[in-house]
Amino acid sequence: MKPPVREALGMEIIRSLQNAQIKAAVKLRDRRGRTQQQRTIIDGLREIRRALECGFPIETIFLNPEALSGPEAGPFSRTLAEHPETAITHVSSEVMAKLSFGERLEGAVAVAKLFQRNLQDVKLPRCPLIAVIEQVEKPGNVGAILRTVDAVGANLLISADGQTDLFNPNAIRASLGTIFSVPVVDATSEETIEFLQGQGVQMLAARVDGSIPYTTVDMTQPTALILGSEAHGLSDKWHQAGITNIHLPMHGIADSLNVSTTAAVLLYEALRQRS
Amino acid sequence: MKPPVREALGMEIIRSLQNAQIKAAVKLRDRRGRTQQQRTIIDGLREIRRALECGFPIETIFLNPEALSGPEAGPFSRTLAEHPETAITHVSSEVMAKLSFGERLEGAVAVAKLFQRNLQDVKLPRCPLIAVIEQVEKPGNVGAILRTVDAVGANLLISADGQTDLFNPNAIRASLGTIFSVPVVDATSEETIEFLQGQGVQMLAARVDGSIPYTTVDMTQPTALILGSEAHGLSDKWHQAGITNIHLPMHGIADSLNVSTTAAVLLYEALRQRS
Repeated sequence: MKPPVREALGMEIIRSLQNAQIKAAVKLRDRRGRTQQQRTIIDGLREIRRALECGFPIETIFLNPEALSGPEAGPFSRTLAEHPETAITHVSSEVMAKLSFGERLEGAVAVAKLFQRNLQDVKLPRCPLIAVIEQVEKPGNVGAILRTVDAVGANLLISADGQTDLFNPNAIRASLGTIFSVPVVDATSEETIEFLQGQGVQMLAARVDGSIPYTTVDMTQPTALILGSEAHGLSDKWHQAGITNIHLPMHGIADSLNVSTTAAVLLYEALRQRS
Repeated sequence: MKPPVREALGMEIIRSLQNAQIKAAVKLRDRRGRTQQQRTIIDGLREIRRALECGFPIETIFLNPEALSGPEAGPFSRTLAEHPETAITHVSSEVMAKLSFGERLEGAVAVAKLFQRNLQDVKLPRCPLIAVIEQVEKPGNVGAILRTVDAVGANLLISADGQTDLFNPNAIRASLGTIFSVPVVDATSEETIEFLQGQGVQMLAARVDGSIPYTTVDMTQPTALILGSEAHGLSDKWHQAGITNIHLPMHGIADSLNVSTTAAVLLYEALRQRS
């Protein structure tokens, strides 16, 4: 394991669990704290490294150098060395345990600013591929979908009428930090539809009872793939002229797949058609 | 909600937490108990219903009729009525709480016999589609893969050198009961390779560094899709002549996807080519 890049000698080390900065960081585990502070907390050396690499606005990294461990410690230290502008706050092992998620003690936790990105701010390429998730509840599913959005090189993920905040620490972890590589936007379903129509992007809504098999649709044009919630599917807002209902063939005893599975099959079909 | 089909009147109701049948059922939460008893425990009305519909050898359904609840209660009761041969054991609400998984109180839990299916017993169609998972550890991933195997109508899932027992209650739940619809077999990797070679099935091994994009391979011939563990990928046993290494294109910052996501993309590509 490589030693941490910067020396702790002569630096102040936070040892008090009552320290205001530590207490504020712990509150970021709750959605209320994230909303109030407009910040989030990032667990995991890989996830923090990816946030740094993608230029995500990290405020500080809480670090307990002696506890840095695991196969990600080396890549993490190297990336940190490449970003000397990053603020580092050294903490004791006791404070690190309080900051860390459950049993996950990798020696570092980061706090980052949230920034509101609006649909109006989004710059799309000529032939964008976009994923829209409506009312998806589970941060784990959001994270899993982000991994695929990153993998296929899609241009945007829109969380429409989201039931979880996108930068929920659980979503960040489930995404393995890929959430920092992809533009993500919160919006209402109405705003999303208006935006996609304005940009001339075809909307393909995945529904269990969709009439058109997904493989027969041309995804080489500007395309948004729309996915509904785990429990209820897409809302009626997406039942309107100009939106095409597609489905995945189902040849077994079940009638639906997990939303992140459906997203992966559709996104990779778009990539296949575009290759 | 429909009332349970059969009357509890005049039937014996188990009320003792010390009842031997109840204690034996609770032990099925542990792998050791499942191995010793060669039985497993099925949570969830949907999952039990699918086991019944697929002819899985249920020994008894522990039932607390007053607690039957949720949108699955109706379909469950109807399926139970269609299977009058099924043994039912009525239990008190206290006993049901002890039998149930965590907070999941749907009013029924089933115990089923495990049967050893060997590769030699498997009857394949002329042009089979097979999924192989090697050393996959997480029951949740096994269950998620089974949902896709069911959805595409694949013919067999082989767990090679499995790190979890296939009929782990967590895998059953994650599969939503689709595990009962698909032939599943435990084997070693060596046995699996020998079997597939003997049946003339091409082997496509998914590897991060696989040389061939998955979309350029002909999957309309007899095909097995081979997937490795979450942590380590496929073992070296699968590096040999006659096995083709394929990969999914990765255009983002990450270099791999979840094993169940990879499985879904590959299985649906096979279905697309075969349609």
